[in-house]
Amino acid sequence: MSSKYSNNLIKSADFIQSLERGLSVIQSFSTEHSTLTVSEAAAITNLSRPAIRRIFLTLESLGYLTSDNGRYALTAKVLSLGYAYLSSKNIWEIAHDPMDELVKQTGESTSISVLDHDEIVYVARIHTKRIMTMSLGVGSRLPAFATSMGQVLLAHLPSEELEEYFEQAILSSYTNHTITDKKQLIKQLEQIRKNGWSLAEQQFEEGLSSVAAPITNRNGEVIAAINISTHTGRNSRKEIKEKLIPLLLQTAQKISEDLARSPHPMNL
Amino acid sequence: MSSKYSNNLIKSADFIQSLERGLSVIQSFSTEHSTLTVSEAAAITNLSRPAIRRIFLTLESLGYLTSDNGRYALTAKVLSLGYAYLSSKNIWEIAHDPMDELVKQTGESTSISVLDHDEIVYVARIHTKRIMTMSLGVGSRLPAFATSMGQVLLAHLPSEELEEYFEQAILSSYTNHTITDKKQLIKQLEQIRKNGWSLAEQQFEEGLSSVAAPITNRNGEVIAAINISTHTGRNSRKEIKEKLIPLLLQTAQKISEDLARSPHPMNL
Repeated sequence: MSSKYSNNLIKSADFIQSLERGLSVIQSFSTEHSTLTVSEAAAITNLSRPAIRRIFLTLESLGYLTSDNGRYALTAKVLSLGYAYLSSKNIWEIAHDPMDELVKQTGESTSISVLDHDEIVYVARIHTKRIMTMSLGVGSRLPAFATSMGQVLLAHLPSEELEEYFEQAILSSYTNHTITDKKQLIKQLEQIRKNGWSLAEQQFEEGLSSVAAPITNRNGEVIAAINISTHTGRNSRKEIKEKLIPLLLQTAQKISEDLARSPHPMNL
Repeated sequence: MSSKYSNNLIKSADFIQSLERGLSVIQSFSTEHSTLTVSEAAAITNLSRPAIRRIFLTLESLGYLTSDNGRYALTAKVLSLGYAYLSSKNIWEIAHDPMDELVKQTGESTSISVLDHDEIVYVARIHTKRIMTMSLGVGSRLPAFATSMGQVLLAHLPSEELEEYFEQAILSSYTNHTITDKKQLIKQLEQIRKNGWSLAEQQFEEGLSSVAAPITNRNGEVIAAINISTHTGRNSRKEIKEKLIPLLLQTAQKISEDLARSPHPMNL
């Protein structure tokens, strides 16, 4: 598996720039920019207006965009790209039942995420309440260093990749509890690797704590993290350590064992 | 808004073939093909191996693919493409609470979908059980004619678009109850438009029935459908008509009204 932080340098003759640009145009749509004109997309992506125009026309003819009076919007066909990822992994087949069981045991929400550069990306989520915020869940991103899952994933990076992480990561302060000091963070990651779990109390959001544990593949490599998130006050630190963490570790082990048995060589 | 069935012919000079090919390569990964070699992807997409190789290298250098011994797999970064769609729409902001309320009232699951050619695409889903199968939900596709939501969406197509639909749709028989006769289906669609809802009993899957109603934008155009799906036997036809349909229509109206008030011009 190529390093997450390798530059992945390929010969320029092999690199298809128009594919890169097309994908970046899809990514330029967001909550703030639900529709875009050619000029607006050019401003966001730093591409020329003629380049954007051709990309818009191509994406529209392929059914990924619709237009109305010069304003473009993504269509539901874009979902089928993300769906290709989810259906190509057997994440759900394997993680669904153990995660559901964990929610029943704890009364708290649980998620699984993977590392993508300096962010974690949610790939599965089960909410306590029937209220299902997966659209706000799967595919969404958070800074790795300030979340329990991110810390677990960073703690298990090879040291050269962790160095590369720190070279590019911005350790912003999200709450009074965010660890923004590199040395302190490295010490924390060592402790997490030793413990086998991470507890992040209000480090990303006031009032929100979460515990995370690693999920491994058949070679014992950490490929994902699973967490339980809870509101501060609903569980004391003692309850988190005595009740939530043992259940979380059990679930992580169950999923890791099932992954090892799975016929898919690259599950996550 | 351009027709869903227009050929969207653009000047060939404007069409970026490598973007089309790159997106089709992403789509070639699936549950059956969770990893692909260059040769396998070439066979699925009908592209040459050198073309696939360049696309693989480009997608890998952009972080959308990883490789291991010549086998390629999608990464979680692909999810961010689908996430661009979901976050660019305020579907959840608007539909979440009414859908959740509907699940509480009925004890049944509810979904929203849109039409893409001859298929419906799920864009939101809330399950009865905490068990959340959104990965099997949002982005997944079903044949329009055999589902209650698809029938609602077809029933509100302009007649020329419905004609185009029938020209390309394959009316396969999924159960003994699937309506595969075009004339009978057209009659059914007229009835659905008159009623304002569709009831599809075991037309796609034995033992599964669903009712659907249209969701409209501020111009009164049908842009999506919402359904309640239930197991046959859990609700009699009488209960469906007297209890489920009125609650469904109420929910559809609430969402349509909220959409009309929303600042996003193209919500779904």
